[in-house]
Parts: sequence; structure tokens; C-alpha cells
Amino acid sequence: MAKHDPDLDLLFHALSDPTRRAILTRLARGPAPVMELAGPTGLRLPTVMRHLSVLERAGLVATAKDGRVRSCAIVPEALMPMRSWLDEQRAIWEARLDRLDDYVMKLMQERAK
Amino acid sequence: MAKHDPDLDLLFHALSDPTRRAILTRLARGPAPVMELAGPTGLRLPTVMRHLSVLERAGLVATAKDGRVRSCAIVPEALMPMRSWLDEQRAIWEARLDRLDDYVMKLMQERAK
Repeated sequence: MAKHDPDLDLLFHALSDPTRRAILTRLARGPAPVMELAGPTGLRLPTVMRHLSVLERAGLVATAKDGRVRSCAIVPEALMPMRSWLDEQRAIWEARLDRLDDYVMKLMQERAK
Repeated sequence: MAKHDPDLDLLFHALSDPTRRAILTRLARGPAPVMELAGPTGLRLPTVMRHLSVLERAGLVATAKDGRVRSCAIVPEALMPMRSWLDEQRAIWEARLDRLDDYVMKLMQERAK
């Protein structure tokens, strides 16, 4: 039907979880150490690490070790394919509405004759 | 961390599958009977029905029985919460860049003194 984009699979899957979306919203405000992400969620560290690895695999978050602290940052460009997909859908949809408009106009003109 | 939006969970989950995205792209061009969706994908009818029910649960597709034919149509407004979420993330991110800009400007002005 359409070519398969595995990046979109990973991206949408990563965003389908409320904890992962909350982590992204936090990181949009600025980078943070993993421990700081665990705190407000009330989640155990291994759970947070598991969510972070899903976000990393989707390219949405980058982590780096700074001494003994692992720091996380958002990669906002990673949301671009999703925005493009949305715009593409809207373009198909609007083209269809335009065709419908043309058809109705033609019908009205023919009836006016 | 943030309030939980179950609609977004369903929406992102529905979009994380390439067959479901292909079905949506097809329906953006106009409504279609279920049988017509099964044809080009090479999928068996029960598989298509299963994907359709995930799309219906997310509010992305509406189906209606017309005699013996089940017809499917896209519900484009259902993508709105996703677009709002994206815009929200971008706003947080851009506000942060603005603050960084202000900080750098202040720093430069102080050095110029």
C-alpha cells in the first residue's frame, strides 16, 4: 500500500506511553540527569531506564555519561518525520476536499444553465 | 509529571503500525469498503478487521454497514490532539531557546561594558 518507514514505527511507539511523553516534556525544558527524571514520576530507576532506552532507540533522547552521572537531552529534530507525516495526510485530505468543491461548483453551474 | 491523556496513548499506538498508517493514507483519498482495503495490502480480511478496530478505538476511522458492505471513512479531526501535543512540545522547546538567547545577549552586553 505504501512504503514502510521503520523510523515512524519507533517514533509513534515511543510516544504511545504517558511516562515517556512526560519525560520528553521535562527534557524539552532542558537536559537532566536520569536520577532527576526518576524523582517526580515516583518510578523506580530501572523503569525509567527502560523508558529512556525506548526513547533513545526512536532517536528522541540522547544520553551521555558525565563522570558518575548519566545526563539526558531531548533531540527535537527527531519529531520532524512525524510532523511531515501529519502534513502529508492533511495534504491528501485537503486535495480531496478541493476536488469535492470543484465537483459541487460544476454541478451548480450545470444546474444554473 | 504531567496529566495522563489516554486519547494520545490510543492515537500514537494506532499510528505505530505501518499497515494502519497505509489504511489511513488510503482513506484520506476517500471512503472505501473493507474488502477494498484488504485487496492491495495482500492481508487476510481478519487481519484488516483487527487493524481497523484499533483505528476505530483511537477515533481515527469510522465504519458503517451499508447493506452487506461495511464502509470505512477517515475522521481527520482525530489527529488534532497529536498536532496540539507537537505544538506544545515545540512551544516549550522554543521558550527555552529564547531564554538561552536572552542569557547570551546579557552576557555579551556585560562583557562589552
